[in-house]
Amino acid sequence: MATEIERKFLLSSDIWRTLPHTSVRIAQGYLSAEPARTVRVRIKGEAGFLTVKGQNHGISRVEFEYPIPHTDAEAMLALCPHVLDKTRHLLQTGPYVWEIDEFHGDNAGLVVAEIELPAVDAEFTRPAWLGEEVSHDARYYNSYLSQHPYNRW
Amino acid sequence: MATEIERKFLLSSDIWRTLPHTSVRIAQGYLSAEPARTVRVRIKGEAGFLTVKGQNHGISRVEFEYPIPHTDAEAMLALCPHVLDKTRHLLQTGPYVWEIDEFHGDNAGLVVAEIELPAVDAEFTRPAWLGEEVSHDARYYNSYLSQHPYNRW
Repeated sequence: MATEIERKFLLSSDIWRTLPHTSVRIAQGYLSAEPARTVRVRIKGEAGFLTVKGQNHGISRVEFEYPIPHTDAEAMLALCPHVLDKTRHLLQTGPYVWEIDEFHGDNAGLVVAEIELPAVDAEFTRPAWLGEEVSHDARYYNSYLSQHPYNRW
Repeated sequence: MATEIERKFLLSSDIWRTLPHTSVRIAQGYLSAEPARTVRVRIKGEAGFLTVKGQNHGISRVEFEYPIPHTDAEAMLALCPHVLDKTRHLLQTGPYVWEIDEFHGDNAGLVVAEIELPAVDAEFTRPAWLGEEVSHDARYYNSYLSQHPYNRW
């Protein structure tokens, strides 16, 4: 079990694309999209994961993640009602790594940046390309997006 | 991934209790009780498991089961809306092992026997204590019982 403390932002510009970063394609679906107990199946590059998350308390929530065989993840994605497709770009600024998720398919046009923090009140420098914070806006949860894609907002 | 082929029965008598068997206590809850994609957390004796099952097709369904730390299973049971409590008795007859589930708590009074078969049309001998078959009765799914306990039927 881990406790995940994350803040999430929209982006004010595309400047980050010119900065050094790595990218990996992610496909994920939800066996449960209930906010109190989400169950996510993910294929990240070639690796499969099964992840359980509890209710959000502010910007933190409990998380349990297990690596699973790629073939299991493929078969479980087929059980999910919707599959999210995105590219995750990792970009280092100071001690922190920003995860910039660029969505495809029905969520194309949406780009969000997340930072995982060691404590709820941890300080961090806001890069110039960072926009409005959406940590508390449930519409930007991936579980919500899988059911209500961005192109229908 | 495995395909699970199971048949489930009520019991016509308690004679089985006098036959050699082993018993283990099981606590389980559902992160998803959707028949198309159930996600079960189970503590069986001291062992934890996370199990995903797909839709039933007749008496078979796909199943993915992963051993997880006991502490993870405890914490995830706390995320489940209901927790089923039962004792599983294992009883060998010929080549097959019967799993006899004796429910406690809100499902006390309910006892069902399950047999896992190698093929949908596999033959097996019905013990004298076996009652009505309920393989196709969704009320006897554990996921259903967790939401609609036997004492409220």
